[in-house]
Amino acid sequence: MYQIFDDVSSPAASGERVKALQRELKSRKLKGFLVPHSDEHQDEFLSPSAERLAWLTGFTGSAGVAIVLEKAAALLVDGRYTLQARAQTDATLFEVLQTPDAKASSWIAEKLGKGAVMGYDPALHTIKEIERLTETLGKSGIKLAPVDTNLVDLIWQDRPKPSQGEVVPHGLEFAGKSAKDKIRDVQALLNEEKADAVLLTLLDSIAWLFNIRGGDLRHTPVALAFAIVPASGRPTLFIDPAKIGDNLKGSLREFLDLAEPAALMERLKALAEARARVRLDPETAPMRFAQALQADGVKFVSGQDPCIHPKAIKNAAEIKGARAAHLRDGVAMARFLAWLDEVAQTGKIDEIAAAMKLEDSRRESGQLRDISFDTISAAGPNGAIVHYRPTTKGKRALQAGSLYLIDSGAQYRDGTTDVTRTLAIGAPTAEMKRHYGLVLKAHIAIATARFPKGTRGQDLDPFARRPLWEAGLDFDHGTGHGVGSYLSVHEGPQRLSRLGTVELEPGMILSNEPGYYREGHYGIRLETLVLVTPPERIAGGTREMLGFETLTLVPFDRRLIDPRQLLPFEIAWLNAYHARVRREIEPILLSDDRAWLRHATAPIG
Amino acid sequence: MYQIFDDVSSPAASGERVKALQRELKSRKLKGFLVPHSDEHQDEFLSPSAERLAWLTGFTGSAGVAIVLEKAAALLVDGRYTLQARAQTDATLFEVLQTPDAKASSWIAEKLGKGAVMGYDPALHTIKEIERLTETLGKSGIKLAPVDTNLVDLIWQDRPKPSQGEVVPHGLEFAGKSAKDKIRDVQALLNEEKADAVLLTLLDSIAWLFNIRGGDLRHTPVALAFAIVPASGRPTLFIDPAKIGDNLKGSLREFLDLAEPAALMERLKALAEARARVRLDPETAPMRFAQALQADGVKFVSGQDPCIHPKAIKNAAEIKGARAAHLRDGVAMARFLAWLDEVAQTGKIDEIAAAMKLEDSRRESGQLRDISFDTISAAGPNGAIVHYRPTTKGKRALQAGSLYLIDSGAQYRDGTTDVTRTLAIGAPTAEMKRHYGLVLKAHIAIATARFPKGTRGQDLDPFARRPLWEAGLDFDHGTGHGVGSYLSVHEGPQRLSRLGTVELEPGMILSNEPGYYREGHYGIRLETLVLVTPPERIAGGTREMLGFETLTLVPFDRRLIDPRQLLPFEIAWLNAYHARVRREIEPILLSDDRAWLRHATAPIG
Repeated sequence: MYQIFDDVSSPAASGERVKALQRELKSRKLKGFLVPHSDEHQDEFLSPSAERLAWLTGFTGSAGVAIVLEKAAALLVDGRYTLQARAQTDATLFEVLQTPDAKASSWIAEKLGKGAVMGYDPALHTIKEIERLTETLGKSGIKLAPVDTNLVDLIWQDRPKPSQGEVVPHGLEFAGKSAKDKIRDVQALLNEEKADAVLLTLLDSIAWLFNIRGGDLRHTPVALAFAIVPASGRPTLFIDPAKIGDNLKGSLREFLDLAEPAALMERLKALAEARARVRLDPETAPMRFAQALQADGVKFVSGQDPCIHPKAIKNAAEIKGARAAHLRDGVAMARFLAWLDEVAQTGKIDEIAAAMKLEDSRRESGQLRDISFDTISAAGPNGAIVHYRPTTKGKRALQAGSLYLIDSGAQYRDGTTDVTRTLAIGAPTAEMKRHYGLVLKAHIAIATARFPKGTRGQDLDPFARRPLWEAGLDFDHGTGHGVGSYLSVHEGPQRLSRLGTVELEPGMILSNEPGYYREGHYGIRLETLVLVTPPERIAGGTREMLGFETLTLVPFDRRLIDPRQLLPFEIAWLNAYHARVRREIEPILLSDDRAWLRHATAPIG
Repeated sequence: MYQIFDDVSSPAASGERVKALQRELKSRKLKGFLVPHSDEHQDEFLSPSAERLAWLTGFTGSAGVAIVLEKAAALLVDGRYTLQARAQTDATLFEVLQTPDAKASSWIAEKLGKGAVMGYDPALHTIKEIERLTETLGKSGIKLAPVDTNLVDLIWQDRPKPSQGEVVPHGLEFAGKSAKDKIRDVQALLNEEKADAVLLTLLDSIAWLFNIRGGDLRHTPVALAFAIVPASGRPTLFIDPAKIGDNLKGSLREFLDLAEPAALMERLKALAEARARVRLDPETAPMRFAQALQADGVKFVSGQDPCIHPKAIKNAAEIKGARAAHLRDGVAMARFLAWLDEVAQTGKIDEIAAAMKLEDSRRESGQLRDISFDTISAAGPNGAIVHYRPTTKGKRALQAGSLYLIDSGAQYRDGTTDVTRTLAIGAPTAEMKRHYGLVLKAHIAIATARFPKGTRGQDLDPFARRPLWEAGLDFDHGTGHGVGSYLSVHEGPQRLSRLGTVELEPGMILSNEPGYYREGHYGIRLETLVLVTPPERIAGGTREMLGFETLTLVPFDRRLIDPRQLLPFEIAWLNAYHARVRREIEPILLSDDRAWLRHATAPIG
């Protein structure tokens, strides 16, 4: 199993750990220390050695920061994680606060006096983060000071060794463009902007640029590494050489130099001394590197990681791969859903059994490399917890008369998937159907959107909300996130959300996942991945329009659909989608499951 | 007539004027001078003495800037005005460039060398504008230097005297809140933000705050003035005292001091010497005042004009006034449309005759104070020119088989109106009806929108575009602008547009005016004003939703509506709207026009 269902949280040890950290503070004359969730690459999923926040506090969510002072400590998390953070941590140790209402700077300013010095690890915080915090704390006369070694690492006795996952090539048949060509494009950009080099710190940027994949993080096939790409000449990849086999080493050395990660800081200092103009992304690069480059009065060149934009625009090979991955994933989902229909009402299936069955079903293709995130297998009221993760202790059984929400995805070499369906277990109530219908309308509103060049994600997000707004409802997350190509399941810069200021371009892949959550009762979310299609003439129109091709091939639960709630164009879209799912999936399915598929994709209306 | 139909442009004199200006440049060792459309208050409609750009170039649009160098000159306008600017100016004198593709700074940098100095009048440019331009020109080594007297004023021999329109009180029955109470609120804000005073430079802010109206600009009832509001004590209104009658003087002096406009600069210098923290809005205040306040090393306090936000939220009296104004305006429109239906097909009515008839119809109420902008009376292909204004020379006749677009508004003491209808003259084509239907769907999409607190104008703008996008069409202007209360017909900060980042709040008034323009053939725009309604529970919902109340009461042309193109909720909205128009207007109409109204508002579908 790629997914583990243990309750990994261990708040019992927190007391001792916090005390040990406070002793370190004292010996350094620091009044406090910041422990963020982030690692050195701002990853969402961490390697075990980077799980400092969980080790210290017990909180296992994917975002947050602990602030440990001499006599107090707080854990700041966003609205998704407030309940979880309270449940996983010791309330006598950590005050749990919800951002953005609560702010780290306000809490610190309230507790500390003028002249106090807060420590932080400059490897774990971005440049922008530290700049903002320096400014706000400065107003209260509080200073920030970088530490040489993370204080948690000093006291974490059995801290795991850095992960040693094998690095593998990402073949041209999947990548669609050679590393040499990608490097040439990055170098052209550097020359245009008169930078001498760029430092890459994001793991998916490095994996994308050099056409490699790794095994250092759960669910995201990247390798822990850094890279420097000069405006001309060979890039250097800073990576533990033990992770790379000789064959791959040979082919990588055709266009890059390999170096130990420990050599990076020296190299940056040498660049600074040579007064080189090194580009850094202040939104994602750790402060540590800005400090190294600034040491001799030179300032880094501020600019977005140059891989972010080209990585988001999938090329023909990546699009072909995405379609193949979704067909394969659709077959696995169909087999899973057919099984579920048979057994769900027995009351003997729980959230973990279902998640394991789905992972098995994906494994049957022989091509599953990982799941793309921990499956959210949520029965009844658990569906209303947006980031729910079933555990052995807390799991629920699927029961008749309830809704079951399953949000999952796979990593295949040709693509990353992410799909959510909500299913009726037994007979649904009229209210469940009404709410399901509204979310389905929201989903179709995005799936059918046409829009001109220049349209941003934030311009489309309201289309998904309108059916819910009309009913006095809403959902508290974005409508969609970008998705990588056998890379991160959450990938920027594109997104469908209030904050989606990036223009949508052909080749971008996004999720379309509106929802509705009735706390204590059920959650409904319907998610497919969509591909932005090229500008196209529309009959009778004067301007070319972009649109979405739905990649995911999984039926929506017809038992929850009341055709009277839908408009003719919505019914037409749904029936056409189901016909397509059947046409593409059926030939690959075993005969038992074909009957299920035919029923699940029969026309409505 | 409030509207004049002359061709006011006089490019013939431009050659001499530009030469005279170039002589002034030489004697001052300036390499160039900027002539913006703006006046000292960033007004859209100008008083005659501020029409410097039109005087110099011949261009009469509402936005743009001329750059005059020693041997070259350019006129930069936005996409609305490119054609008009080319038609109105002498091409041998002015290179017409379209913003934002063309940039003033790029054009200047291309023409001038390092070390060159460009002059500008610091009274006419905002702080932000000059800051941006200083930065971009600085990169090319070009400097900006303020001049003491505008160079155009020096050479403009017969420049009109400043306007002397009478200032009148805006009664509490219309304003809904006393000037004293408004001043108290502004002072509370100043104290909260630790500013000692605020300088007001926007005429509608001053008119709103002191509950006065003026007659210095066409179509906007404001008085040329400035004001300083101290954090405590009495405000000073800098205004020509000849414009204020003795009665009003007496009542104004109960809560403010009057001063000559010429005294303002001295006062600012005195404040700067006293090291007072004076708030200025860098987006709207002229650079001149920032310079005056900065003279002694003190910097102004940057902050939005504190009247902008409260002025946008109409109070109960203003809302009551808006409803009354729209009822009165609806009667005038009904009388006009009934007349038009009778005479339009004769071919004897032209754009000017129709605009005059509408103004007369509005005057019949005895309460018309002005029109709120020059009526856009546009026959056939002229409808596709978004900012068309009919002139004696260029007017067209209304002809059978065409569309006629009329966009107009009134200033009444209780409210400002702005309404556009598009009408069939004779039998419309199927294509006209199809396009009209799409714009009507766009209009209804906004009229029926429900949305939660926090929704911004940019979140709703796409609702209007969706029906057009689906047909491969779009329109190149925002969906709506804010509207004042017997003030500016274009009022911020709220707007329905891609740039509408301000949250919509109950009491705001906006236009809802999607369109479609088929160049060389016709233009369709359907505009009503809407009022943002308070958060309201929706049956079956969990969150309160805001919405819009349509204020305008004017039928849509049923001859252009094909019910088969509309969804049931769209037909229901339209029929309910027409029933309401009839219910409210009919009792006030003369009997002849009642038959027309009954026909015009009969149900469709």
